[in-house]
Amino acid sequence: MAKQIKIGIIGFGNIGSAVAEVLKKNRKVIEDNTGIDISIKKVCDVVKRKTSLPFTLDFRQVVADPEIDVVVEAIGGENAAKKIVLAALNAGKHVVTPNKELIAKHMEELLSVARKNSVQILFEASVGGGIPIIQPIRASLASNRLDEIYGIVNGTTNYILTQMTEAGMEFDQALKLAKEKGYAEPDPTADIEGYDAAYKAAILASVAFKAKVNWRDVYCEGITKISKDDIDYAKGIGYVIKLLAIAKLDEGKLDVRVHPALVSCEHPLASVSKNYNAIYVKGYSVGDIMFHGQGAGGEPTAAAIISDIIGCGNPKSKIQNPKLKRIKIKKIREISSRYYVRLLVADRPGVLAAISKIFGQKKVSIDAVNQRETVGSYATLVILLHKVAEKNLRAALGAIKKLAVVRRVDNVIRII
Amino acid sequence: MAKQIKIGIIGFGNIGSAVAEVLKKNRKVIEDNTGIDISIKKVCDVVKRKTSLPFTLDFRQVVADPEIDVVVEAIGGENAAKKIVLAALNAGKHVVTPNKELIAKHMEELLSVARKNSVQILFEASVGGGIPIIQPIRASLASNRLDEIYGIVNGTTNYILTQMTEAGMEFDQALKLAKEKGYAEPDPTADIEGYDAAYKAAILASVAFKAKVNWRDVYCEGITKISKDDIDYAKGIGYVIKLLAIAKLDEGKLDVRVHPALVSCEHPLASVSKNYNAIYVKGYSVGDIMFHGQGAGGEPTAAAIISDIIGCGNPKSKIQNPKLKRIKIKKIREISSRYYVRLLVADRPGVLAAISKIFGQKKVSIDAVNQRETVGSYATLVILLHKVAEKNLRAALGAIKKLAVVRRVDNVIRII
Repeated sequence: MAKQIKIGIIGFGNIGSAVAEVLKKNRKVIEDNTGIDISIKKVCDVVKRKTSLPFTLDFRQVVADPEIDVVVEAIGGENAAKKIVLAALNAGKHVVTPNKELIAKHMEELLSVARKNSVQILFEASVGGGIPIIQPIRASLASNRLDEIYGIVNGTTNYILTQMTEAGMEFDQALKLAKEKGYAEPDPTADIEGYDAAYKAAILASVAFKAKVNWRDVYCEGITKISKDDIDYAKGIGYVIKLLAIAKLDEGKLDVRVHPALVSCEHPLASVSKNYNAIYVKGYSVGDIMFHGQGAGGEPTAAAIISDIIGCGNPKSKIQNPKLKRIKIKKIREISSRYYVRLLVADRPGVLAAISKIFGQKKVSIDAVNQRETVGSYATLVILLHKVAEKNLRAALGAIKKLAVVRRVDNVIRII
Repeated sequence: MAKQIKIGIIGFGNIGSAVAEVLKKNRKVIEDNTGIDISIKKVCDVVKRKTSLPFTLDFRQVVADPEIDVVVEAIGGENAAKKIVLAALNAGKHVVTPNKELIAKHMEELLSVARKNSVQILFEASVGGGIPIIQPIRASLASNRLDEIYGIVNGTTNYILTQMTEAGMEFDQALKLAKEKGYAEPDPTADIEGYDAAYKAAILASVAFKAKVNWRDVYCEGITKISKDDIDYAKGIGYVIKLLAIAKLDEGKLDVRVHPALVSCEHPLASVSKNYNAIYVKGYSVGDIMFHGQGAGGEPTAAAIISDIIGCGNPKSKIQNPKLKRIKIKKIREISSRYYVRLLVADRPGVLAAISKIFGQKKVSIDAVNQRETVGSYATLVILLHKVAEKNLRAALGAIKKLAVVRRVDNVIRII
């Protein structure tokens, strides 16, 4: 005899309706796999949607329905979603949500309200779409001391960078194509400036290290300054450029950031292309693990949401909702990294000596130097640096910029 | 107050001792992550091992210990392991094992005995070492209709193929290096002939499709016939060669097999190199998911084993131990695939016409033909075929072999 779970879906756009569609198609297989029969009691949206399911315009009719066990919040955004989720939790409903903004901004409060009401709030779909990552961190990887998580968590920027790498496009051209293909929104700011990835970085850091992470403390740099030149220079030395979300524990502090990075072509993340996502986890004793898949889209996201609905029907779920610890978050000036630096310099003898001298004074150690093509009386210098404190690099670059032979610093990109 | 789990470890070699070592190092983090405190009550082996833990030479002292909740079987092999596991299950202990041979050969019986005793038998570590795959299939992916699983599940052969691909070695040379580096056993038969991968294919198919799979029904072809020439020809057309374990449901039948395959360089599995493993899952609605990591080694394997020990301490565990269905397994002649065929033929006009004619008669459709270098009066012909029934291909090749202009069929490799 199958266990019955009745759900309500609030927000019936792309994702909400995909949940309904997938539940319809997979109801039998889900029951077969889990012994749980999931049925949809009510769906809700602010505008009337075409559906044969019982529909309401009033979310209170969902959260107040005594038969509903789990509320799926799929409206997105911050304030209205928060109101609905709090109402559902306080009405004793489990909540499942793919809403990364909501979770990144209010995780601690939502976990605490869920705990108080002895219900679950699960958000597998908020990072990596269909890729199982939050549940594996909490379950399969629970035997490990996690050291570091980094990954490609934004499909739009990965699509753009892939086009720049494989088809030789400039950023603007690749962005235009991404919009045409539906991989970028009409207003792509949240993706290309890295905000979407920053939400996900905050969530990953919170889950992996059970730490409160204010998403505003996540250092965030988008991909708008990456040029085809950077990608070509990187390729020439065996690297690709990817936008990474990074979370690691370093000397008792959390290092959480989003920025483009040079990734060695040998690294499994290097071959994650198009709009795919992948998350790389390092821990003891598992070593290196990577989870790869479709990071967005209605059906993959619905897979993760339904997996969480199943989780709510699981007796162990009530032990989750971890209490978050206070761990200090590093400022970007406190991190250390390897770097790629691209400079436009005068094409004459002694320039490299002048630059090297300043790097030396600031304890910045050079790994490799490539002088690239000359345009007029200027040449492009690409310098790779050994691991160094970012504050030393910034001090050195401040001084280098003032050299008469340096026209400009074209780009500085971290290397992982 | 942490929940206490006491374990016994039977078999204290590489893996058993790694479990003890990791539990010592991660005990605190495991308790923090799961609320479970795991302690080792007894370890056992057939020879005296150096350890400060309570040691016995008699496994009955472990399985009969009323305080032990979970027995870790880490002796490997079939018969003695089976005796120990059955004794533990019948004594009401949960069992965790990385023993792929045991599970592949006796899964149904062991699940049934576990069910009868209301205990759990878990074997995450039996496939993919530290990579979470069995638990994700049962939990995170339970909302999906799984269609196909295929992957690189043997690190030895992947290391050998990587050396052949990247360093241009011949098979024998790469095998020698693998032995020197400790990636191949002194007797490498089980790895290079694909038997190890076949055990894992049987387990993956059983778990994904809840089907009884007799591992003897798994078609199995190793990598000993792969030459550097095949790898070079494949590379020239954008493919790498990998040993794959494949399990899919096809027209109500199970297609389970292990063989080398041409994998497009664009495919995420293509960049899984050295001794790494990766498992690719296709399902509705999740799309394509890949799990990548270290497929062997004491510490990664211990991570998976300890994750299962935690699972045994989980109240939902008793609903597992699925009953296996009877699903017919396809014979290799019943499958369809794309193929790479390498022939040594007379270097004279009309040869291709003669070969094409036979392919046409047997309804085998040619995708592309490359004539490669000529040696004396012979030339190498590499032919790629569109998807075709294997039985038609075999019939065609039987006829082609008899052509006077065909010296020999050098290799036939499936393409995924």
